[in-house]
Amino acid sequence: MTVRVAVAGASGYAGGELLRLLVAHPHVEIGTLTGHSNAGQRLGALQPHLLPLADRVLAPTTAEELAGHDVVFLALPHGQSAAVAEQLGPDVLVVDMGADFRLKDPTDWETYYGSPHAGTWPYGLPELPGARAALEGSKRVAVPGCYPTAVSLALFPAYAEGLAEPEAVIVAASGTSGAGKAAKPHLLGSEVMGNMSPYGVGGGHRHTPEMIQNLSGPAGERVTVSFTPTLAPMPRGILATCTATAKPGVTAETVRAAYEKAYADEPFVHLLPEGQWPATASVYGSNAVQVQVAYDANANRIIAISAIDNLTKGTAGGAVQSMNIALGLPETTGLSTIGVAP
Amino acid sequence: MTVRVAVAGASGYAGGELLRLLVAHPHVEIGTLTGHSNAGQRLGALQPHLLPLADRVLAPTTAEELAGHDVVFLALPHGQSAAVAEQLGPDVLVVDMGADFRLKDPTDWETYYGSPHAGTWPYGLPELPGARAALEGSKRVAVPGCYPTAVSLALFPAYAEGLAEPEAVIVAASGTSGAGKAAKPHLLGSEVMGNMSPYGVGGGHRHTPEMIQNLSGPAGERVTVSFTPTLAPMPRGILATCTATAKPGVTAETVRAAYEKAYADEPFVHLLPEGQWPATASVYGSNAVQVQVAYDANANRIIAISAIDNLTKGTAGGAVQSMNIALGLPETTGLSTIGVAP
Amino acid sequence: MTVRVAVAGASGYAGGELLRLLVAHPHVEIGTLTGHSNAGQRLGALQPHLLPLADRVLAPTTAEELAGHDVVFLALPHGQSAAVAEQLGPDVLVVDMGADFRLKDPTDWETYYGSPHAGTWPYGLPELPGARAALEGSKRVAVPGCYPTAVSLALFPAYAEGLAEPEAVIVAASGTSGAGKAAKPHLLGSEVMGNMSPYGVGGGHRHTPEMIQNLSGPAGERVTVSFTPTLAPMPRGILATCTATAKPGVTAETVRAAYEKAYADEPFVHLLPEGQWPATASVYGSNAVQVQVAYDANANRIIAISAIDNLTKGTAGGAVQSMNIALGLPETTGLSTIGVAP
Amino acid sequence: MTVRVAVAGASGYAGGELLRLLVAHPHVEIGTLTGHSNAGQRLGALQPHLLPLADRVLAPTTAEELAGHDVVFLALPHGQSAAVAEQLGPDVLVVDMGADFRLKDPTDWETYYGSPHAGTWPYGLPELPGARAALEGSKRVAVPGCYPTAVSLALFPAYAEGLAEPEAVIVAASGTSGAGKAAKPHLLGSEVMGNMSPYGVGGGHRHTPEMIQNLSGPAGERVTVSFTPTLAPMPRGILATCTATAKPGVTAETVRAAYEKAYADEPFVHLLPEGQWPATASVYGSNAVQVQVAYDANANRIIAISAIDNLTKGTAGGAVQSMNIALGLPETTGLSTIGVAP
Repeated sequence: MTVRVAVAGASGYAGGELLRLLVAHPHVEIGTLTGHSNAGQRLGALQPHLLPLADRVLAPTTAEELAGHDVVFLALPHGQSAAVAEQLGPDVLVVDMGADFRLKDPTDWETYYGSPHAGTWPYGLPELPGARAALEGSKRVAVPGCYPTAVSLALFPAYAEGLAEPEAVIVAASGTSGAGKAAKPHLLGSEVMGNMSPYGVGGGHRHTPEMIQNLSGPAGERVTVSFTPTLAPMPRGILATCTATAKPGVTAETVRAAYEKAYADEPFVHLLPEGQWPATASVYGSNAVQVQVAYDANANRIIAISAIDNLTKGTAGGAVQSMNIALGLPETTGLSTIGVAP
Repeated sequence: MTVRVAVAGASGYAGGELLRLLVAHPHVEIGTLTGHSNAGQRLGALQPHLLPLADRVLAPTTAEELAGHDVVFLALPHGQSAAVAEQLGPDVLVVDMGADFRLKDPTDWETYYGSPHAGTWPYGLPELPGARAALEGSKRVAVPGCYPTAVSLALFPAYAEGLAEPEAVIVAASGTSGAGKAAKPHLLGSEVMGNMSPYGVGGGHRHTPEMIQNLSGPAGERVTVSFTPTLAPMPRGILATCTATAKPGVTAETVRAAYEKAYADEPFVHLLPEGQWPATASVYGSNAVQVQVAYDANANRIIAISAIDNLTKGTAGGAVQSMNIALGLPETTGLSTIGVAP
Repeated sequence: MTVRVAVAGASGYAGGELLRLLVAHPHVEIGTLTGHSNAGQRLGALQPHLLPLADRVLAPTTAEELAGHDVVFLALPHGQSAAVAEQLGPDVLVVDMGADFRLKDPTDWETYYGSPHAGTWPYGLPELPGARAALEGSKRVAVPGCYPTAVSLALFPAYAEGLAEPEAVIVAASGTSGAGKAAKPHLLGSEVMGNMSPYGVGGGHRHTPEMIQNLSGPAGERVTVSFTPTLAPMPRGILATCTATAKPGVTAETVRAAYEKAYADEPFVHLLPEGQWPATASVYGSNAVQVQVAYDANANRIIAISAIDNLTKGTAGGAVQSMNIALGLPETTGLSTIGVAP
Repeated sequence: MTVRVAVAGASGYAGGELLRLLVAHPHVEIGTLTGHSNAGQRLGALQPHLLPLADRVLAPTTAEELAGHDVVFLALPHGQSAAVAEQLGPDVLVVDMGADFRLKDPTDWETYYGSPHAGTWPYGLPELPGARAALEGSKRVAVPGCYPTAVSLALFPAYAEGLAEPEAVIVAASGTSGAGKAAKPHLLGSEVMGNMSPYGVGGGHRHTPEMIQNLSGPAGERVTVSFTPTLAPMPRGILATCTATAKPGVTAETVRAAYEKAYADEPFVHLLPEGQWPATASVYGSNAVQVQVAYDANANRIIAISAIDNLTKGTAGGAVQSMNIALGLPETTGLSTIGVAP
C-alpha cells in the first residue's frame, strides 16, 4: 500500500519533523507541501536539513492544492483546521496537529482558546485506554499536545489503577522548539542558552484542560492539575515530573505493578528498570517514551516522570503513529525507538 | 578593616567561585589557599579564569597552613570540617561550605549522611526568620545547600504567614556545576547538553531534611517535602518550582502580601513585579534571588518560584554574605545583584 | 541478503552510533557486542538510547566471541585492531573504526602514534578519487578520522582541479563526542557549555598526516596543512573552515565548477546553492555532508567549508557506507541524508 | 571624581553590558538612559538582570535628554552617532560603541557600510601601538568592533616585530550576543543550540577593513585578511584563530619573545604560559584577554589565538577602559579580569 500525503504548514518545526519521518515511511508518497507566508519558496531554504526535499516548492494552503491526497496533515495555527478539513471530504484521512479537535468540553475550549469549539475527533494518543480502538479506521485524528502526551503517559496508569488522589502536580521542562519558529526576543539563543525560566504559571497554559481530560477519564473522577511549564536550554525534549498524593494502602510495589501492566505491550513506551530514570537525550529524535515511577513514603507521594521528544512522539511521530493505526498499517511503521545520542 | 582569609579547597567549583568574590571584596586580603590532590599546583592551571591569582600555589589542607588567618572558609568533602575547625581555635571565623553543621536533628544527619553528627552552627541564610541575628558576631557559620537556599526563599513566606498546607512539592532544575568538578561519565558535556534528567527521585536527596527544617520552623508545624531535582543543560543556576495546597481562605492578594512583607527590605531577594517570572540567566554570577508567586484557584495551590546562581547565592555568595554579617560589615559588601546576561 | 554483524567496542560513542544505524539497516542481523571494562553489563545501562538492544549483554572482546560473523566492526583504542583482525580470518569483512590502518607512510604513523605501523587498508572515504573502487569487494576497510572526513571533502575538489596552492589552512570546530566517553575534567558539561577552546594547536593533532595524505593525492604534489581543532559547546558536529591561496587565474566560477563536478553524483555530499552555508545542525544524526565554497578576491583565497556529524558520516555512518560498498549493496542502504533539526 | 554618564541605547546587549559595568564603577553616577522603540518602558522589563536599575525608565534618544552629562556612551545603529555627537558639544566625552568613527579610510567605510564617512576618532584599543596616547584626554572615542579586538590583540605582536607575512588567515567563533537582540529566525535558540555555522564568508564581513587597518599599521605594510566568522552555540565569547606564514628565520622562540614583549605590562591581556590555550569560558563577563601563540614548523605558520568576551572587552568593557584613559583615571577602574566560570 502506498498513500499519497499532503502536509499543510510544511515550513514550521512540526511540519519539518513530520516530513523527516514521512520521507522514511515505506508506505508514503509525499505529495503537496504548503505554506502561508512562505508559499513559493524552496523547502531547502526553509528546512535545510531535509536534503531529499530541498527542491520542493511550497504551494499556498488551499483546498485545491490539498485535494487528491489520501492523507492530509494539518500543521496550522489554532482555529484554521476546521475550515480546511471540511473541504477535504469525508474519505480523506485528516490528521490535525493543532489543538482544534482535542477537547471534548466546549466550555474548556472556549475558556482557554477564546473561540467557538469546532468539535472533537478521535484522540491520537493510542496508549490511553480506549484510544487505539477509536483511531482504527477513523478518517479524522486530533494529535495531542506535546505536554499532555508526556504528562498523560507518566500519570494515567496511577489513575487507572486508583492509586493517586485526584490532585496532580506537574512541572515540565521543554526544549525551545515547542515554542515554534516565529522569531520572538525571549526565544533568541542569547536568551535561552544557560537559562531556565517558567511561563504560563498558575494554570494558564492551554494544555491544562487536555491533561485534566486525559487523567480524569482513567481516574473515573475529576482530576485537578497544577501545571508549571518551564523553558529549558535545549532544542528538543520534554521532561515531565508528575506527582500526586498516594491513596491509602499504596506501596512501591502496587505502583510499579500498575505501570508494568499499563506498558507491558506498548511498542513505544519503555518503563525503565528500577533505579534508572528518563533522560530527554535518550529519546532525541525518536518516537520512544521513557517512563519511571517511584513512591516516596516520607511524603506519601507517587512521582512519575516521563521523557519524550516534543517534536517526535509529542507531535509528528505521534501523528504518524495514529495515521498508521487509522490506515490499518502496523503501528510502528516508519517510526524509530532509538534516540540520537549523545 | 582588613581581614586575612584562607580558603581550604580552592581547586573546586565552590572554592573558585569564592575566590572570584573575595578578590573583589574591599576588606579581604587573600591568604593561604589549599587543595588536596592538587596541592603544589599553580592555581592558574586549575582555575584559569582567576587571572589575578594565577601564580598562587596550593598548600596542603592542614591546620598549620590554615593558621594565622582571621577567616577560614572550608570547601571540603562532607565529614572533614569538624576536625579542621577544632584546630583553628574559637577566635577564628570558620565558614563551612559543606553540609556538616547545617542540620539540627542528629537523626536526620545520620539517616542522610551515614556518619555521626558533628553539631549545628548558625545557619547562613540570613533571610530566614531569626537567622540574621544568630549570625551577628558568630565565629562559626554553616552555609546552606544550594537547593535549600532556592527552595526556602521561594516558600518560607507562605509558611510564615500560615497560607500553605504542610506538604510541599518541589521540582528544581540545577546547572551542572552543582554536581562538582569530579569527572564522572554522566556529567560529560556530551551527555548533559540537550538533556534534562532527574536524579535522587523519591526523597533520597540529602538536601531534603534541610528544606524540611527551613520550612517547618516558620510554619510552626512539620512540613513534608516531595523533592525532585533535575539536571539541566547549563553550567549554573537553579530554578525551583515550589507548590503547596493553599489553606482555606487564601487568595492571590494574601499570597502576594506575604511575599511583599517578607522581602520588602531584603537586599538580595527581589520579588518580581506581578506577571514577570524568574529566570536563572538574570542572576548568573550574582548574589541576587528572583522570586515570584501565584495562586492557582482551579488547583487551589500556591506556586512559588525562585531563581538563584547555585555557585553564588547558593554557595560562595551566601558564604560571603554571612561572613559580612558575622564580621559586622555591611551585608552587601563585595556582592553584586547584577547578573551576567545575556 | 542478510549479514551477521559483530561490534567490538559497543559501549563507546562510536559503537553506540554504529548500533543506532545497524538496527535500521535492512540487511544486517546484529550479533555479538563486546566491551572491555563493561563486559557483562546490559547495553541498556550503558547506551540508554538504544531501546531495542537494551537487554543485550556485552561479551568480552576476544576472537572467540567475534567468530562466526560476516562483518566485524572494530571500535577499539588505537593499536589493538591488528591483533584482532588477524584472528578473524581473510573472509570476514573487518571494518576498523580506529586509526591503525589509515596511513600509507609508516614514518607518519610512527611520528604521530608512537608505535609500529600495522599496515594500510582500503580507505573508507568513497568520495575521494579512486577510493570507491578500492572498497568494492574488499574484506578490510579503514574508516577515516572525523576531521579528515570533513576537511578532505571540503578541499579535495580544489586540489583535484589544480586551483589551490599546496598550503592549506584549516580551523575546525568539533562537538564534544569527538573526544569520546572517557570522563576527563575538561570535558565536563560545566566546562564545555558556553566555551570555545582550541587544542592540539601547532600541528600536533594526529589527524594532520591523514589530511595531508588525502589532499596531496588529488593535488599531485605535497600539501602542507596548518590544522587547528577547537572544541565547541555541542554534542555532535564538525564545521571545517578550510582555506588556501588560489593559484593564478582562479575565479569564483572556476572554483564553483570544480565542486559541481566533484559532487554532481555523490549521494551524501550536498554542494549547497550559492549563498547558503553549511550548518552542523542540518546534518545532525545523518550521513549527509554540506559543502560550500567561495573565492575571496581581496585575499586571493579559496574558502571551502563543510559540515558533518562527526559520529555519523565522520565515523559510524562512513563505516556503514563503506560496508555497503564492500558487500556490493547499494551505497546508501540504511543511511539517511536528513538531519534531526532543529 | 564622579562623572555623570548617559547611555544612549540602553535596551540592547551592548547597552545592558555597559550598565552592568557602570553600576560597579566607583567614579560613575548613572544619569539618563535612552531607547528608541522602548522609550517609556521600565528597564526592569527589558534588562531583568540589572536589578539595581530596574525602576529606571528609558527616555527617547534626543540631544535634550543626553545634555548635562560628563560622558555619553552611544550604543546606536550605524550611521546615527555623528548627528548626536555634534549636538553634545566638544567638552562632553562621547564614546561611540558603533562603527561610525573607527575607519581612517573613507573609501573603506563607503565600500563596507554604503554611506558617507563621518570621520575618525581616537581608537579605543589601548593595547595597540600608539593608541593609548591618543586616548588620553580625548573627548571622542571610537570603540573597536568585537572581532577586530580579538584578532588585533592576537596578531599585532607578530606584525609589529616583522615575523609574519602580510596575509593573515582568520577564523573566529562568536557567541550569539554578537548578533544583537533583534529577533531573527536564524538566531532562535532552537536554531543555534547544537549548531556551528559560518556567515559573511569570503571577505564580506564589515569588520574586515578594521582588522586590516589594525594589523597594517604595526606591520608597516598592507596586510590582507581572509576572515571567516562563525556563530557558536553560546551566548558570549569570541575565540579567534589567527594564522600567517612565518617570515624567514622565525622560530618558536622569536615568536614567543614578541608576545612577551607586547604584553608584559598590559593589565588586561594575559599571555598564557606555554602549553595552555585560551578558552572563552575563562574570560566570561570579564575584560581580560587570553592570548597564546605557537609556531608550526611543518606548515611554517604562526598560529595566534585569543579569547575575549565579545560584550565586555569586545564592546562595553573596552569602552569603559577607554573612558578611564580619556578621563585620566587608572585604566583598570571598575573592570575585572576574572571570568565567571564554570
